[in-house]
Amino acid sequence: MQKIGVLTSGGDAPGMNAAIRAVVRRGVSLGMEVVGVRRGYAGLISGDFAPLSLSSVGDIIQRGGTILRTARSDRMMQPEGPLEALAQAQAAGIEGLVVIGGDGSFRGALKLAALGLPAVGVPGTIDNDIYGTDLTIGFDTAVNTSLDAIRKIRDTATSHDRTFVMEVMGRNSGWIALAAGLAGGAESILIPEFPVSMDEVINRLQRGSERGKRHSVIIVAEGAGQGFKIGEEIKNRTGFDTRVTVLGHIQRGGAPSAVDAMLACRLGARAAELLMEGRGGLFVGQLNNEVVAQPLEHMLDKHRTVPHELVELAEQLAI
Amino acid sequence: MQKIGVLTSGGDAPGMNAAIRAVVRRGVSLGMEVVGVRRGYAGLISGDFAPLSLSSVGDIIQRGGTILRTARSDRMMQPEGPLEALAQAQAAGIEGLVVIGGDGSFRGALKLAALGLPAVGVPGTIDNDIYGTDLTIGFDTAVNTSLDAIRKIRDTATSHDRTFVMEVMGRNSGWIALAAGLAGGAESILIPEFPVSMDEVINRLQRGSERGKRHSVIIVAEGAGQGFKIGEEIKNRTGFDTRVTVLGHIQRGGAPSAVDAMLACRLGARAAELLMEGRGGLFVGQLNNEVVAQPLEHMLDKHRTVPHELVELAEQLAI
Amino acid sequence: MQKIGVLTSGGDAPGMNAAIRAVVRRGVSLGMEVVGVRRGYAGLISGDFAPLSLSSVGDIIQRGGTILRTARSDRMMQPEGPLEALAQAQAAGIEGLVVIGGDGSFRGALKLAALGLPAVGVPGTIDNDIYGTDLTIGFDTAVNTSLDAIRKIRDTATSHDRTFVMEVMGRNSGWIALAAGLAGGAESILIPEFPVSMDEVINRLQRGSERGKRHSVIIVAEGAGQGFKIGEEIKNRTGFDTRVTVLGHIQRGGAPSAVDAMLACRLGARAAELLMEGRGGLFVGQLNNEVVAQPLEHMLDKHRTVPHELVELAEQLAI
Amino acid sequence: MQKIGVLTSGGDAPGMNAAIRAVVRRGVSLGMEVVGVRRGYAGLISGDFAPLSLSSVGDIIQRGGTILRTARSDRMMQPEGPLEALAQAQAAGIEGLVVIGGDGSFRGALKLAALGLPAVGVPGTIDNDIYGTDLTIGFDTAVNTSLDAIRKIRDTATSHDRTFVMEVMGRNSGWIALAAGLAGGAESILIPEFPVSMDEVINRLQRGSERGKRHSVIIVAEGAGQGFKIGEEIKNRTGFDTRVTVLGHIQRGGAPSAVDAMLACRLGARAAELLMEGRGGLFVGQLNNEVVAQPLEHMLDKHRTVPHELVELAEQLAI
Repeated sequence: MQKIGVLTSGGDAPGMNAAIRAVVRRGVSLGMEVVGVRRGYAGLISGDFAPLSLSSVGDIIQRGGTILRTARSDRMMQPEGPLEALAQAQAAGIEGLVVIGGDGSFRGALKLAALGLPAVGVPGTIDNDIYGTDLTIGFDTAVNTSLDAIRKIRDTATSHDRTFVMEVMGRNSGWIALAAGLAGGAESILIPEFPVSMDEVINRLQRGSERGKRHSVIIVAEGAGQGFKIGEEIKNRTGFDTRVTVLGHIQRGGAPSAVDAMLACRLGARAAELLMEGRGGLFVGQLNNEVVAQPLEHMLDKHRTVPHELVELAEQLAI
Repeated sequence: MQKIGVLTSGGDAPGMNAAIRAVVRRGVSLGMEVVGVRRGYAGLISGDFAPLSLSSVGDIIQRGGTILRTARSDRMMQPEGPLEALAQAQAAGIEGLVVIGGDGSFRGALKLAALGLPAVGVPGTIDNDIYGTDLTIGFDTAVNTSLDAIRKIRDTATSHDRTFVMEVMGRNSGWIALAAGLAGGAESILIPEFPVSMDEVINRLQRGSERGKRHSVIIVAEGAGQGFKIGEEIKNRTGFDTRVTVLGHIQRGGAPSAVDAMLACRLGARAAELLMEGRGGLFVGQLNNEVVAQPLEHMLDKHRTVPHELVELAEQLAI
Repeated sequence: MQKIGVLTSGGDAPGMNAAIRAVVRRGVSLGMEVVGVRRGYAGLISGDFAPLSLSSVGDIIQRGGTILRTARSDRMMQPEGPLEALAQAQAAGIEGLVVIGGDGSFRGALKLAALGLPAVGVPGTIDNDIYGTDLTIGFDTAVNTSLDAIRKIRDTATSHDRTFVMEVMGRNSGWIALAAGLAGGAESILIPEFPVSMDEVINRLQRGSERGKRHSVIIVAEGAGQGFKIGEEIKNRTGFDTRVTVLGHIQRGGAPSAVDAMLACRLGARAAELLMEGRGGLFVGQLNNEVVAQPLEHMLDKHRTVPHELVELAEQLAI
Repeated sequence: MQKIGVLTSGGDAPGMNAAIRAVVRRGVSLGMEVVGVRRGYAGLISGDFAPLSLSSVGDIIQRGGTILRTARSDRMMQPEGPLEALAQAQAAGIEGLVVIGGDGSFRGALKLAALGLPAVGVPGTIDNDIYGTDLTIGFDTAVNTSLDAIRKIRDTATSHDRTFVMEVMGRNSGWIALAAGLAGGAESILIPEFPVSMDEVINRLQRGSERGKRHSVIIVAEGAGQGFKIGEEIKNRTGFDTRVTVLGHIQRGGAPSAVDAMLACRLGARAAELLMEGRGGLFVGQLNNEVVAQPLEHMLDKHRTVPHELVELAEQLAI
């Protein structure tokens, strides 16, 4: 291959720029040209391209967000979308494509691969719920941002003898809630995978209160309930002074952590190598510390869920 | 004076512990004993005291929150509250009191001073709206926390071509919103002191959009409107992809910034010195880089508002 | 077992307190008493013990350093040291021991186990070079601290068109240098495991300079050379404006990252469980995301070295 | 004026980019064109110019370093330097100049003003020792970076019962050492303005040790002595386990703090306004929270020194 493209798609995640840099640098070191595709599949369909050089990615490894920007593309979901995308790629001489994003983004990659454009998926999402990799790019940074917030919240919870409910991201996945809650010593963690009844949450709060515990921090993944509703119920049933914080989009921003930047380097470089070898229709993940390429169709429609062992551990340590 | 007390009252703020440490260390170096009063005036009325030594404050200068905890006390607002507080102080041999808190907390200090217990107020609040001081303890840390959030939000705003509304604290005061918004390069800043119409906000967004600006960050002090309502209106009137983040209580937490820790050292030490000299009914602030003591009654019922010049500057730089 | 001890030994590492908390909380939840041993084996030999309760570890998960303090003990290396330690443990009713530290610390644990005191080792060191675990507690935090420093150094390197040499910790191990250098996009990384000649470093700098690169950051593990000597040689041979920073002990401090806090929770809890089951002479590590217990003697005298693949990747991306 | 230039000169400082942005945005809003001059006076003399637009400074407010780069220029110190600089400015139609830098940089500005090119100085240096302003751009960020390092060092000092010496920047000025040391609760602070004998430092350490204090952090401004020599002497005379850290260039990097970003906005904007009014030969500083313009010649050859009152306070609180 002589020319490949790279795009970011779906929700942005810290480390996407480090992955773009890795694709470009490894691609160029292998003798290929690399073209940036702006705003995901929308830009691929409309031909919104810009060449990327060694120096144009020289200062992006630490930047949050994605310099290529990202967007959702309805057109890519329709039958003609992938055909139009392919035509644009061919017109620009793009022979292979790296897609950095989440589950939905890989469906588009698979369609392009089926049409003859080798595409390789790289997992870039803060949710960490992608099958076929132990870690997704952006997860560790989002967890550290949430952990920092828990630590700040605990300062004020302790000072005021208050109960705090903090809602973090994760519509279908409790990864951020569980990891940040465990690392932050949260008193309860509510996640969609292993539902806990409000009775149990409240019993635990009351038992703690009887033992003299005067403040608590409860972490809720958005898929497990709305922070404000849960806070309201706790207040009504216990009478505890309860406050709610919805952490929101700050979880998506910031410079990537070391884990995320390294992961982005490894996966982005491997994606470029696979395309150089003419291989597409693949997904590049990290399993047991190794970079592994697997067929894209094997990992769609599956989710990587949190291990129950970690849920138990969080409960054992929150006594 | 041989024995003084110290309490924190009202909302907690980063640097309160550094102020407690300064009261204790300066007090002890002047030959006084220092007693910690837990949970503000409530603890004063109930006699919830604990001696504080050089070593018991040895590791608190960098900690968020307040080791003495804080609470609001209705009883202190009633006629008998201050009398009960005085009786407890006298029973414990407490001859003077340092009150670290906000405007409401100083009313209690003034009542105690009127009853013959010399009390000195130290401004500890993230709101920065206290008359008689250029800075309050906690403000700079809260602004830096908000600034960090703006920077993270901007990463994702840029990546998605989105408009973000971020609500920060400040029920009656635009200080945090203005300082963080100016330092973070926000496109619009809404504060209670100088209201801006939604028409103007939307005009500005649309002019930016016409010039090619594809993302914006709007900061709203809670006293100037609800973030979610403002986001909704922007979305409805412009059609822009608009998201809202309510930063919430994380603004109260965290280790104090250098400015806050230094301010706390200066004001806390001066408060102890004033009591050693037998002076009470005073408020200790920083004016033009000097520590200044003023009568408490001079600064009640007044507010320090943001200068209009900074509002204009923020607008000029957001073009 | 009814009563166990826990100590930290060797160089301190972020997350040691989170591990202590996990030992205590899991131990108590299993029905055991937990005793803290101060200053490592020195405190064990002198009987410097303090009971640890659920609440005494209630606020330590995020604190850097170790509340139990740590020290090196020459006496423990001598024949009578372990016997004296055993006697003190028995006198205090301590039936099992968790040792949080590095390689040297585990030799002591093994001796105690041989004498009949079940001891379990938990890897707490920033160096990450312990055999039998993919990660050691403290490594991820130290890497993130170093990464933050690289990012700050790069700001000033770019502004001044300078070459910077930054020396990081790692007397026998290049883990911190390699991870931080890769994540920070360092132009060269010098580690003890895979030596690079100064000729190669200088060639690389000169090739970069010919391509128009005006600044560079070179990371050196202390085991691969002295930063100041390397900086001097670069300056003398290239004439480039070269500066040196020795990062030093700040790499050991700070609140643990999410990865380190979680790892500490997992390993500390498992160590308590093993002792509850009466098992000693073991080392608890994390391998392929699972917590694994192995005989202590299997992992001594071995080192976990950096994979050559990551060294190559760093070079490929630094073109 | 229709066209002005802006350059950064001397050592780089966090917030310089925020100041450049403010000059550009305020300049453009007043109807002027703004030209960036690369690498300080060297670039002015060689005509290394680039136009700066609203959007070219759209994403730099939070970036460390200076996008214009900076350098020292020997030629500007020689008689013909300023003449060559003037000729280049005139050839490019540059009618006024903003110089962001330190004391040395303002000498060049004064010479240009004397030759008829209105020049305005903006204080950008981490040293905070410039006469005519209460704060310089970059100081607050450097202090917070140093404070963060003190906090990390204290973690490991406490864990190991060690004495740490930390050397911070300040060849002629103790501002960073004093501010960070006070905010970090350092046991001793050595600065060039108010020398302290080693006898006194050691007495203080020994008195602390007698009272049971087992660890200490001593901050040294580079102008008050070399960290390594001081550490050596402490070790030799006390026998305490003493370690040394030289913080180095990381103090220059990083995103500007809120204080620095705001200060840069205020001073940069005012500099553009002064040039628009045709006024040059001025220095823009912040005095008592107001932006004030003063003749450049009034502030040369003077230094703003640390107040002795803060030195005393640090000693009083370190008991």
